[in-house]
Amino acid sequence: MLSTQIVMARRPSGPLTQDDFRTETVAVPERPADHVLLRTILVSVAPAARAVMQGPTYRPQLQPGEAIPASVLGEVVAGPPGGPRIGSIVGAAAAWQEYSTVPVDQTWPIAPVGRLSHHLGPLGRNGLTAYFGVSEVGAVQAGQTVLVSGAAGGVGHLAGQLARAAGARVVGITGSAAKNEFLRDRLGYAAAIDRRSPTFDDDLKAACPDGVSVYFDTVGGPLLGRVLPVLTRHARIVCCGVTAQYDADRPLPGPPDLAVTLIAKSLRMQGFLVADFQPRWAQAQRILHDLEHSGALTFVEDIRPGLAAASAALVEMFDGGNVGQLAVRLAPDPATWSAGLPTAQDDPSDAP
Amino acid sequence: MLSTQIVMARRPSGPLTQDDFRTETVAVPERPADHVLLRTILVSVAPAARAVMQGPTYRPQLQPGEAIPASVLGEVVAGPPGGPRIGSIVGAAAAWQEYSTVPVDQTWPIAPVGRLSHHLGPLGRNGLTAYFGVSEVGAVQAGQTVLVSGAAGGVGHLAGQLARAAGARVVGITGSAAKNEFLRDRLGYAAAIDRRSPTFDDDLKAACPDGVSVYFDTVGGPLLGRVLPVLTRHARIVCCGVTAQYDADRPLPGPPDLAVTLIAKSLRMQGFLVADFQPRWAQAQRILHDLEHSGALTFVEDIRPGLAAASAALVEMFDGGNVGQLAVRLAPDPATWSAGLPTAQDDPSDAP
Repeated sequence: MLSTQIVMARRPSGPLTQDDFRTETVAVPERPADHVLLRTILVSVAPAARAVMQGPTYRPQLQPGEAIPASVLGEVVAGPPGGPRIGSIVGAAAAWQEYSTVPVDQTWPIAPVGRLSHHLGPLGRNGLTAYFGVSEVGAVQAGQTVLVSGAAGGVGHLAGQLARAAGARVVGITGSAAKNEFLRDRLGYAAAIDRRSPTFDDDLKAACPDGVSVYFDTVGGPLLGRVLPVLTRHARIVCCGVTAQYDADRPLPGPPDLAVTLIAKSLRMQGFLVADFQPRWAQAQRILHDLEHSGALTFVEDIRPGLAAASAALVEMFDGGNVGQLAVRLAPDPATWSAGLPTAQDDPSDAP
Repeated sequence: MLSTQIVMARRPSGPLTQDDFRTETVAVPERPADHVLLRTILVSVAPAARAVMQGPTYRPQLQPGEAIPASVLGEVVAGPPGGPRIGSIVGAAAAWQEYSTVPVDQTWPIAPVGRLSHHLGPLGRNGLTAYFGVSEVGAVQAGQTVLVSGAAGGVGHLAGQLARAAGARVVGITGSAAKNEFLRDRLGYAAAIDRRSPTFDDDLKAACPDGVSVYFDTVGGPLLGRVLPVLTRHARIVCCGVTAQYDADRPLPGPPDLAVTLIAKSLRMQGFLVADFQPRWAQAQRILHDLEHSGALTFVEDIRPGLAAASAALVEMFDGGNVGQLAVRLAPDPATWSAGLPTAQDDPSDAP
């Protein structure tokens, strides 16, 4: 059986380009006994894909010729007895490819809640990152001003809305005027400013007249140094992504006066992984789904057709072009998928 | 009345030298009605003095010709009715000078506990910084490995001992072999390593085979980047000083991969000021005094005679030469001072 895949053609030097990718058709390797064979329905297009192309981060460095790693939602074509049911849909850490063989213990069930595509983002890792980042690490309170960087991104657009739902006044930072308009008009942000504007520092002060109590940072890099002046005493910096760092071939320097400011303002800066909150994933998914169902939360998706669209989508993501959860669809939702509302009897996925 | 003082002769360029100071004798300004006139007994020699010589930090930038700011313990020579008793000893934010006029509300009482000099450091701001940094911000637990930078300094030597008293295994970082020997042999550190050693990174790994759960950072700057690899998941970085930064004429860059590591290891990095814990100062002083009295905590003092010694002491501090609390004595403890053990009836200072 043949499978088309997108691989890294070369290690990127500087900002990502289409020339860093190549499409190949390869034979699907024989399935080991404890693996499932998945037919890909949807794949994520996520900043982490860029990161592993550059160097080791949370996972080993990708080598030229290897397929781009991604979260996948796929239909089980074959698998061992006792494994996921043939024809059912599971999530898996796989790659930008039509077929994947994945160890059973590296797949996770998908609860019949919401749209299938939601499980790649708003009900998956990005939604959980936003949820635990806002409610636990940031501990956002009503009346606070919450600032979100990468505010239109897969995590950011949910974090900002969750903070607003908690009663905060939310200000977003993005890389374009069009995104900012979308955040203000469609997602209820109080203000949104352009990090590329020459008047950024003044814009930020004007947008946050009472200062910022929680800075939800999805981009990392030098932007933090420009946000420090508007943080209030005892503010929290929630580190949940370093996408600015991902698209660079060398580490970006941190703000030079960071520790001085952390001390002078008694700030807390904290990183986290969704894995830290694993026992509460199912509960959080339910809350996210209910908020979306009630209209308090809008899941913004940008799903492009065809595997070939994936590399262009990733390049565009780092160029600041996309809004919401970015993914690529290889096949329609199968008939075996039927979404419903969660009930107390449901058993939502506990392993996004 | 005349008063000798040490002033900033010029703004330092690069590492501090004696030429950055000048001794002057000036007339003591007339005392405003709401001020006390203090005769200095002891003055602190503290990293913050270096910081204000460079630029604005927690307080405005010092100008050439102005006396070096310092904490002072002094005898009240004159003051308004209802103010501190004439002849009593108070603490004050003043300067390296024989006489100071200070607003009454910027002085604080000194409880008759421990030695008078202890109130400049171990029972004053440095002791409280170590205490709240270890017990609250770091939340040190028995069995953890705690790493302290500037480990022989006024704050560091207390923080390490407090962590050890809490049951932690304590590793120190200093700038000299002699200090390290002192920490190991006299203060109960499990290990102590030299940040200037060419094998520092390996030394650090060897000294912390189980990793580091709490990094108590009194120096700031690039050292953090070299400590990140040994931090365990969910470790805490307690930012309580940036002395490395103080002795530089431009900001030192932060570690480039800080946010990446904060996320990958779910780290918390937190700054604080002793002012954050003001309601608990008296309680903490009592605990510090009791620990010292019982032998669990050694207050290391380095008190040099004569105001003229102050500038050389500060230069030496940044050159890595001193151990423990550095101070300068201008006069003997007066007869009005009588130290005793604290009792429930005592009213320890609530404003170091």
